[in-house]
Amino acid sequence: MTAALDLNADLGEGFGVWTLGDDDALLAVVTSANVACGFHAGDASTMRAVCAAAAGRGVAVGAQVSYRDLAGFGRRFIDVDPAQLADEVLYQIGALEACARAAGTRVSHVKPHGALYNATVHHEAQAAAVVDGVRAFADLPILGLPGSRLLRAAGDSGVPEAFADRGYTPRGTLVPRREPGALLPDTDAVVARALRLAERGEIVAVDGTVLRTEARSLCLHGDTPGAVGHARAVRAALTGAGVEPTPFAR
Amino acid sequence: MTAALDLNADLGEGFGVWTLGDDDALLAVVTSANVACGFHAGDASTMRAVCAAAAGRGVAVGAQVSYRDLAGFGRRFIDVDPAQLADEVLYQIGALEACARAAGTRVSHVKPHGALYNATVHHEAQAAAVVDGVRAFADLPILGLPGSRLLRAAGDSGVPEAFADRGYTPRGTLVPRREPGALLPDTDAVVARALRLAERGEIVAVDGTVLRTEARSLCLHGDTPGAVGHARAVRAALTGAGVEPTPFAR
Amino acid sequence: MTAALDLNADLGEGFGVWTLGDDDALLAVVTSANVACGFHAGDASTMRAVCAAAAGRGVAVGAQVSYRDLAGFGRRFIDVDPAQLADEVLYQIGALEACARAAGTRVSHVKPHGALYNATVHHEAQAAAVVDGVRAFADLPILGLPGSRLLRAAGDSGVPEAFADRGYTPRGTLVPRREPGALLPDTDAVVARALRLAERGEIVAVDGTVLRTEARSLCLHGDTPGAVGHARAVRAALTGAGVEPTPFAR
Amino acid sequence: MTAALDLNADLGEGFGVWTLGDDDALLAVVTSANVACGFHAGDASTMRAVCAAAAGRGVAVGAQVSYRDLAGFGRRFIDVDPAQLADEVLYQIGALEACARAAGTRVSHVKPHGALYNATVHHEAQAAAVVDGVRAFADLPILGLPGSRLLRAAGDSGVPEAFADRGYTPRGTLVPRREPGALLPDTDAVVARALRLAERGEIVAVDGTVLRTEARSLCLHGDTPGAVGHARAVRAALTGAGVEPTPFAR
Repeated sequence: MTAALDLNADLGEGFGVWTLGDDDALLAVVTSANVACGFHAGDASTMRAVCAAAAGRGVAVGAQVSYRDLAGFGRRFIDVDPAQLADEVLYQIGALEACARAAGTRVSHVKPHGALYNATVHHEAQAAAVVDGVRAFADLPILGLPGSRLLRAAGDSGVPEAFADRGYTPRGTLVPRREPGALLPDTDAVVARALRLAERGEIVAVDGTVLRTEARSLCLHGDTPGAVGHARAVRAALTGAGVEPTPFAR
Repeated sequence: MTAALDLNADLGEGFGVWTLGDDDALLAVVTSANVACGFHAGDASTMRAVCAAAAGRGVAVGAQVSYRDLAGFGRRFIDVDPAQLADEVLYQIGALEACARAAGTRVSHVKPHGALYNATVHHEAQAAAVVDGVRAFADLPILGLPGSRLLRAAGDSGVPEAFADRGYTPRGTLVPRREPGALLPDTDAVVARALRLAERGEIVAVDGTVLRTEARSLCLHGDTPGAVGHARAVRAALTGAGVEPTPFAR
Repeated sequence: MTAALDLNADLGEGFGVWTLGDDDALLAVVTSANVACGFHAGDASTMRAVCAAAAGRGVAVGAQVSYRDLAGFGRRFIDVDPAQLADEVLYQIGALEACARAAGTRVSHVKPHGALYNATVHHEAQAAAVVDGVRAFADLPILGLPGSRLLRAAGDSGVPEAFADRGYTPRGTLVPRREPGALLPDTDAVVARALRLAERGEIVAVDGTVLRTEARSLCLHGDTPGAVGHARAVRAALTGAGVEPTPFAR
Repeated sequence: MTAALDLNADLGEGFGVWTLGDDDALLAVVTSANVACGFHAGDASTMRAVCAAAAGRGVAVGAQVSYRDLAGFGRRFIDVDPAQLADEVLYQIGALEACARAAGTRVSHVKPHGALYNATVHHEAQAAAVVDGVRAFADLPILGLPGSRLLRAAGDSGVPEAFADRGYTPRGTLVPRREPGALLPDTDAVVARALRLAERGEIVAVDGTVLRTEARSLCLHGDTPGAVGHARAVRAALTGAGVEPTPFAR
């Protein structure tokens, strides 16, 4: 049985006057905050405020690195030159590290955002670029999809994660968003996913297949309806079952 | 007599496909490079490349922090909220620090760029904000105009600088760019300025008045016609006079 | 008695994934929509969608032109060169005009946004630049504060407006936001403001002074709590009093 | 024999303080100027100035539409949603149209820039989106590669173009930039290309194969070494051969 499980979520995804999601609510639930670094969202003041709030709650701060794409919220694949992508990853981590240090904490992990996350599942050069960018800064843990090129490139620094609210195919990939079963139907299903993952290291696919997983972190969403409710229920259920949510990064 | 003098210049002021100035030529001359951090110019790849080149030559890397204004090259005053300005200064230094460390060096000083430099001569709240942003990162030296609000706010961290090619009024301020005498007429005058500053701590104003100055660094420009020639001549003259150009920041 | 009154509000002020205000609700109330043109908010898809919705409801489309400042939502004064400001105003109007035409309507007026609106109350060169930019496009009506440099520069094209929810000083200027009385206390007060303006061309200041005003449009806000409620109540009251809200621009 | 040939080139590709290419020199040569519209390059002031200069010389103004990507100069494929791409094309054309009208001319054609140009050779949805965006504005001619999805989607509005300085494969596609023969070796070869195209509608491929082409415009580059010299030589040779360079768009 897994003694502990990390809960991660994306935070600080507003920009200037615009806000997104309920950062305060999520900070009360998660153990790792993936903070937007200014490339798909996140301005310096938001970054610093989220770092301070995370530090105050003992939540680990991670760099949610992205393509440079505020207009698209980092959700469109960009065929950026890998060397440049590595530099941009380095830049983003450094900017967040300054905010984190000012708040008395540090950047303790990295997670690619949106289209970059999806691209680095298969795109070998971009996956390697992300890892290069991270290592140019420090040998930080990198969150990613089990089996992805990103985790392969990250080697021992890779931290596989599972998704709390997404349906899985029998092969262990995510059900595409357009297909039935892409999202778990309700809070009960999300809680059951979290408990089974924490207690047995298993995920149940849409057809009932039981998948073994190495996932050490569970990704919660904060920008969908009901997501904060899901997140709170997950934390309560884990705690009730004696599984203390704990940051994976030490 | 001044044993040493720092020579500083702005570098890395291109963006993406666009370039500006002759970084390589200036890096062979200066002892401190003020590197653009992405807010008025400078992308991650340029920043990293300039840091690497500076490190290779033993040139100190400084953060040339700016208003967020790529379209205006940071040359327009922006009435930004001081708290936000401090956060943006912190962000920029952090981003550059990551690039510097990856190149085996560190950010060793800060210099505001363009309109922010000019604003912080008189604008008390923005001057304090720049210093706050720097201190939130570390107690780095800050280059500025003697007598400016910025240097007053910086206290012992302030490093007064002089300009190699600009005319001075008898009161020690710069002759406005639109007026006669704003720029020194030729390389000889620029070299004379540098030598007199290095050897006697003096600047000769447009009317012949001899000004005492505490300036510990001499700012060279790289984006004006003949500027690289001026810069090379200054270095050669100083070296010939036994004044070794040396970074002020240790 | 005023036969008709225009109701204007700012719309389309999201950007990419981020939204702001309740455009649909306001479109059901106002007669003139000031649509963000991409410089402080507003992307091409939002602009086109707002234009289509406005056209569908017979709401006039105006260009809400701004400083180029997405990060600051156009709320910070920028000391931009007036010639460049004129060009940027022209650019923004043209971009919106294309969206408007695609929706079967046209840009029928212009209103500066945020800090540009405030600056052009007193800043003669920027006020003239806005008018120059508009006239380079067409001789469109320009909404502004009575007595402002902007309206003076606009001449016969100027359209004075009043604010539905802001307190006025006895001299006819707005009570600064930090002072007591800056905002009218409740919906009743807002409705009374609108009726008195429509029926008698008068505004009652915070101290009870009755001000005569030439205002031909009433500005409603959509991004403050209760604002949509205010707006609906204003329209209902005007209609009930036989004052049909009507676009000023024909 | 072709009575006339259009010569097109990309112009206005600076941004703010940064410049690129020699617009003045090219304006003296080409008959159609593809003007950057602010998404990969080009600010409002540059756009207006280029339009004025083009109008003064009788050069046709075209909208060089791009992905939104200043940092990458529009050279990276972005997997943007086609509906949004259409809206962005419309926005860019409208912005340029306002600048063109202020200069006494009109936008008379459209040409996608960089990665968007390349993508729309094969990417059916993006090609259709570009055409949709153009048609939402007006039924303007669209420059593209013969055989591309873009020209197919454009139908009668499509204007096939050839490249003055690029090598062609025997199948009529461009030799990739990394391969030998990607660029014609010298000015003589470029001039020969232009003359043969104008006089016989033929292009000679790298292996000597003679290709028939429908190209009605010849694309000249301005940002490569020697490009301006090539361009001038082409115009002189055409004129000398009695082929008057003429805009394709009327």
